[in-house]
Amino acid sequence: MYLVELIGTAVFAATGVLAVSRRGLDVMGAVMLGLVTAVGGGTVRDLLIRYPIFWFDNFDYVWAAVAGALIAFFLNAVVANAVRTLLYLDALGAALFAIAAANKVLLDPALSAPVAVILGVLTGIGGGLLRDVLAGRPTLLTSREIYATPIFLGCIVFVLLREFAADFAYAGFAAGSVIFGVRALALWFHLEMPHWLVEPG
Amino acid sequence: MYLVELIGTAVFAATGVLAVSRRGLDVMGAVMLGLVTAVGGGTVRDLLIRYPIFWFDNFDYVWAAVAGALIAFFLNAVVANAVRTLLYLDALGAALFAIAAANKVLLDPALSAPVAVILGVLTGIGGGLLRDVLAGRPTLLTSREIYATPIFLGCIVFVLLREFAADFAYAGFAAGSVIFGVRALALWFHLEMPHWLVEPG
Amino acid sequence: MYLVELIGTAVFAATGVLAVSRRGLDVMGAVMLGLVTAVGGGTVRDLLIRYPIFWFDNFDYVWAAVAGALIAFFLNAVVANAVRTLLYLDALGAALFAIAAANKVLLDPALSAPVAVILGVLTGIGGGLLRDVLAGRPTLLTSREIYATPIFLGCIVFVLLREFAADFAYAGFAAGSVIFGVRALALWFHLEMPHWLVEPG
Repeated sequence: MYLVELIGTAVFAATGVLAVSRRGLDVMGAVMLGLVTAVGGGTVRDLLIRYPIFWFDNFDYVWAAVAGALIAFFLNAVVANAVRTLLYLDALGAALFAIAAANKVLLDPALSAPVAVILGVLTGIGGGLLRDVLAGRPTLLTSREIYATPIFLGCIVFVLLREFAADFAYAGFAAGSVIFGVRALALWFHLEMPHWLVEPG
Repeated sequence: MYLVELIGTAVFAATGVLAVSRRGLDVMGAVMLGLVTAVGGGTVRDLLIRYPIFWFDNFDYVWAAVAGALIAFFLNAVVANAVRTLLYLDALGAALFAIAAANKVLLDPALSAPVAVILGVLTGIGGGLLRDVLAGRPTLLTSREIYATPIFLGCIVFVLLREFAADFAYAGFAAGSVIFGVRALALWFHLEMPHWLVEPG
Repeated sequence: MYLVELIGTAVFAATGVLAVSRRGLDVMGAVMLGLVTAVGGGTVRDLLIRYPIFWFDNFDYVWAAVAGALIAFFLNAVVANAVRTLLYLDALGAALFAIAAANKVLLDPALSAPVAVILGVLTGIGGGLLRDVLAGRPTLLTSREIYATPIFLGCIVFVLLREFAADFAYAGFAAGSVIFGVRALALWFHLEMPHWLVEPG
């Protein structure tokens, strides 16, 4: 499980670097943007719930993110060919991190179930938002890409199942399937939000 | 008073959504931008003064923001016609939240009066700044709109009156009148910063 | 030493204002952007390590930043001529703040040496990142300017020397020389990142 988290972190960093590539990015910028993408969401979550920042105690997350960023930077041509594969891995990583975050919040008796949903979503998308803001790109909040919605649905499934006493493995698997499944369908069929849920103009 | 705060939160969210409308925004993005606009400033304030985030304990603020965002999204044509009215309500909301924030800081013996002014302003404008950054719009820091200045003046009035032992109701009413009054004048007469206070070029 | 810190703060604020000048900036926006540039990095650092925000206890930092911003705003023509000089002073300020931050982290037994490097860099560049994001400018993460790299190298030097029991004055002077030296060379010779460390395209 821990190894999976580290791989997820590296994949997050790599997709983060690929997303902003071809803009005269240098290696220092690439590593910093990869780091922000990979650990930014969890850092904001820990700030909000006043926990010690998760990578302060375990620097492996930072090494994994730096490795992922460097690989994406130097093996750009190779990695860019695998970008479709990476997007599916990224969806898996987002599922993993969102569920871990929702679980962390639920385990804290001072925090309520709706807070777990919001912080799950924030952890899943926060790193990407920070990266886009720092790289001067439009964020997913103004795009029609289906990215936050599956995370939102999955976190609701997770929280509901846990409220009704499902054990972690079961609730996590169900929620992860929702997040990865909906996102993978959207990627595969190039789905966008239906028109009636999009501002005209 | 509490009801007024909830209505202010909904109005903040609605104006937040209207401000970024007509950009192919989908409903998920609209709700997230509305939430950020409405609770972002107070969240940053609570982070800085190390208080529990205000909407963790009382989720009504989130529901109010989501409701305001959804109304602005689905009833866009109706609400957009009322946008001038909403701007005045938004000024009232900003006054309310800035004063509540300054008050919260003043009540903490570890924090000084100038900090109350800065955090009052930050709470009043922080949500809008976050929204504009996430939506890729120019923030009010680089516009000549008169928005932060009345909040700044009002927070100074509030802190000075409280220092000189005025009671909360009196100081709050005076400060709120300054914030709402100056902002309303600026809206009504389309005032901008005088030229000698604006960078030429 | 304390006076040097205040001067560094004012210089940070002044270069912050000059960087975004000629965009119709008004005085309120200039002061706020100057403040963010000067105290933003240290504020994020204190949030992450859960210390009281440094300028809450000592408002002199805020006054220094406001003074620097106002001077840069009103004496724009004069200060803009000295912009090359200011960039060198800015490099000195960045060195000072990054080392002070790394030192603050190292002194905390709960935090490790690699965290000190990351927070040193973040404190050195964080205020500028926040300013650029709020002003709608490209951040240094996507530029080829050599700004973060010398701070990164200097923080590594500082942390290594302190690990091997060098006293603060010696380690600080060595690290500061690295940061200021590399940055000054880059400024003087208009150095950019070598091509093999920059994304083609």
